Amino acid sequence: MRKIFLFMMVSLDGYFEGENHDLSWHNVDAEFNDFAHKQNNGLDTILFGRRTYELMAGYWPTPEGMRDDTETAKWMDTARKVVASEPFTPVWNNTTVVSEDVIGKIAKLKQEAGTDIVLLGSNMLCVSLMEAGLIDEFRLMYNPVAIGKGTPLFAGLSKPFKFDLLHSRAFTSGNTLLTYAGKRV
Amino acid sequence: MRKIFLFMMVSLDGYFEGENHDLSWHNVDAEFNDFAHKQNNGLDTILFGRRTYELMAGYWPTPEGMRDDTETAKWMDTARKVVASEPFTPVWNNTTVVSEDVIGKIAKLKQEAGTDIVLLGSNMLCVSLMEAGLIDEFRLMYNPVAIGKGTPLFAGLSKPFKFDLLHSRAFTSGNTLLTYAGKRV
Repeated sequence: MRKIFLFMMVSLDGYFEGENHDLSWHNVDAEFNDFAHKQNNGLDTILFGRRTYELMAGYWPTPEGMRDDTETAKWMDTARKVVASEPFTPVWNNTTVVSEDVIGKIAKLKQEAGTDIVLLGSNMLCVSLMEAGLIDEFRLMYNPVAIGKGTPLFAGLSKPFKFDLLHSRAFTSGNTLLTYAGKRV
Repeated sequence: MRKIFLFMMVSLDGYFEGENHDLSWHNVDAEFNDFAHKQNNGLDTILFGRRTYELMAGYWPTPEGMRDDTETAKWMDTARKVVASEPFTPVWNNTTVVSEDVIGKIAKLKQEAGTDIVLLGSNMLCVSLMEAGLIDEFRLMYNPVAIGKGTPLFAGLSKPFKFDLLHSRAFTSGNTLLTYAGKRV
């Protein structure tokens, strides 16, 4: 069974995006990029919701994305990208669009041979998957900033959800990575 | 100069209280109480907003509060309690109500002789004080639960606010205490 883990940037006041989907508060430096490379290393599948996919597709395959972080840009390009969305024609290579029975199809994806699967951001899809018990690990990177307004992490959750803390790591930048499993209850 | 530090419980999705001011998700155990006793030890002044004060006044001086955590109940009772609020007649001893020029009066309180000052919860007062540059340290205890709805930490902040991470501590319960200073910019 392949594991699915979430990777999400969060502000201290609990937003994964600011107003108008603002992500300019993301606190990224060389240590962050090194962490991301190690996290991505060897993973062959990425899960996305539609919005996050479009954001990534508009950045990583461009000269700007290649220049900012060549290693991640190449990995993004090569990996299998699975997008939960109404049907659309993807502009980025190696993309599969899943439009129906999303939960069932992602449960099957976990059964296939391959590496662990990373869910990048994609809050709405995340909430659906965590309520279906399909997310094995939650990696929440708390950035040292309060942004005051935005969309809260796990917005749409229908009832409280408990976690087990697995470990924590402080970055020189002031980011703190908190890693959890969903609590076995 | 006395320091003011905030102590606040926060859910992973960034709420300091759930719907209808629900705090039943607070993850409190013997290790937490031991931490709280050490934090309180020797402090002589507590700052509150009106709502938090009334919540505390309805719990700590009662048989239930005394039974749940006698040491904290006694400390709460003895400490000087300063409440930012419209005028009211306090029912708990050693309470000062500050109704006008709150920022100026709390700035003066920092100049008085005494120990450091703890701001317990009290989000609205917290935001006013942080925007006035009066909070020296932010101790945010992230509880391992997402509650889905509530009032976000630092609700009312007028613009983004950056922090310097000072340290982090993981508790056996799954709580993580992240301690920050306001960023010097």
